Amino acid sequence: MCELLAMSANTPTDLCFSFTGLTRRGGDTGPHKDGWGVAFYEGKGVRCFHDADASASSRIAEVVQTHPIKSEVALCHIRQANVGDICLANTHPFIRELWGRYWVFAHNGQLSDFEAPPGFYEAVGSTDSEALFCDILNHLRCHCDRDTPEEEVIKRLVALANAYAGQGVFNLLLSNGDWLFTYCTTKMACITRRAPFGPARLRDADVTIDFEPETTPNDIVSVIVTEPLTSDETWDIYQPGEWRLWRKGEVVMRGCR
Amino acid sequence: MCELLAMSANTPTDLCFSFTGLTRRGGDTGPHKDGWGVAFYEGKGVRCFHDADASASSRIAEVVQTHPIKSEVALCHIRQANVGDICLANTHPFIRELWGRYWVFAHNGQLSDFEAPPGFYEAVGSTDSEALFCDILNHLRCHCDRDTPEEEVIKRLVALANAYAGQGVFNLLLSNGDWLFTYCTTKMACITRRAPFGPARLRDADVTIDFEPETTPNDIVSVIVTEPLTSDETWDIYQPGEWRLWRKGEVVMRGCR
Repeated sequence: MCELLAMSANTPTDLCFSFTGLTRRGGDTGPHKDGWGVAFYEGKGVRCFHDADASASSRIAEVVQTHPIKSEVALCHIRQANVGDICLANTHPFIRELWGRYWVFAHNGQLSDFEAPPGFYEAVGSTDSEALFCDILNHLRCHCDRDTPEEEVIKRLVALANAYAGQGVFNLLLSNGDWLFTYCTTKMACITRRAPFGPARLRDADVTIDFEPETTPNDIVSVIVTEPLTSDETWDIYQPGEWRLWRKGEVVMRGCR
Repeated sequence: MCELLAMSANTPTDLCFSFTGLTRRGGDTGPHKDGWGVAFYEGKGVRCFHDADASASSRIAEVVQTHPIKSEVALCHIRQANVGDICLANTHPFIRELWGRYWVFAHNGQLSDFEAPPGFYEAVGSTDSEALFCDILNHLRCHCDRDTPEEEVIKRLVALANAYAGQGVFNLLLSNGDWLFTYCTTKMACITRRAPFGPARLRDADVTIDFEPETTPNDIVSVIVTEPLTSDETWDIYQPGEWRLWRKGEVVMRGCR
């Protein structure tokens, strides 16, 4: 399987601390050594890094750990391959343009019998995940347009996610740069940090941070992951079938299957 | 304006030497300090790096200069903004998926009156370049399909490029990972290196390389740029209106307006 990490914040915030924890699980404290990727929205643009090597020993991952890239929405994935070879084309997150925005997708799970019907968006690699992403965008393009109310787009996403969840494991991160949609079938946890900020210690590396000097009293930063990243904070665990829509660090819509 | 760099090779080859020369022109030996980007194909996957900062002082550019990423096709761009703000969404190269492949595009020039007709692909940022790229892909999607013979696709690309060239400056790099299409209206030069390999010296940095120990006798590596990168080699200068299609380091089709 794989592990996911996402961030939603109300001010551009770096991901160095969480990314450092997660990437240890890519070949050091965890077995997810078959590639990694991360995408940071900056305005409407997306800055991404992908590598088919183990994140724990990747030179590029090291740069992302130590070079603060500030973003309000970021999505990250470390891979333990099941469907599809180990190669760059199969490395999440996947990106496509829809309605003049970049959409970014990362998935943990497996829908082994999934076959994407033909559509405009096509997978480049051979993962079921990328085929699912293309299927989602083909549905949205077919049934909605850029002026469709957000509630309706999300309702359609939830219906799709529920259908996929009936076919296998489907833990999802999806963003259009404005909101971040998260869906859990098996494992997902989150934490929202806001004033008063304090210290936190990673589970996977001997790293402690004090968020207080790095933040302002108005900052709200949420992190969503497969497994909690810190050992001294209380994480909120998603229920199976639960989804949450995040914007600017806060949950703005939620529900459960 | 901007500067372009591309590589076509018959074996996975790194771009460190040429990239080091080009990126000096992004705020040091040249004025192209409004962002930079590079895309490396690895199989069907693409690894890309984008930054809205000056390449000459970018930490991420430094990593790309020193960390050998091996590819058979790579495209790079350093930007001096004219149309569109300085931001990540306006930073070349641009990427879209068509027929299950990633297409990568970088452009030097300006078509100030260009307005893209509506189509499936839409620009995310506000550059004329990205609008041109979307227009090209919309044309291809409309008039060709995945089984269209390559000659026909290229013929259509040439016709489009000739039409754009009638409206302004249009120096182009475009690849689908298999071939690299290059089109010149004002400035483009290329060099093909093959055995016997020798040394070369950059114009923009005090760097000399000896390609011989890094290559095999069968390697063919071509570099296409806006302005020659080395001071001790003979570069082949494109004519205005000239286009060349590269595959595995060699020109496989060519023509002139």
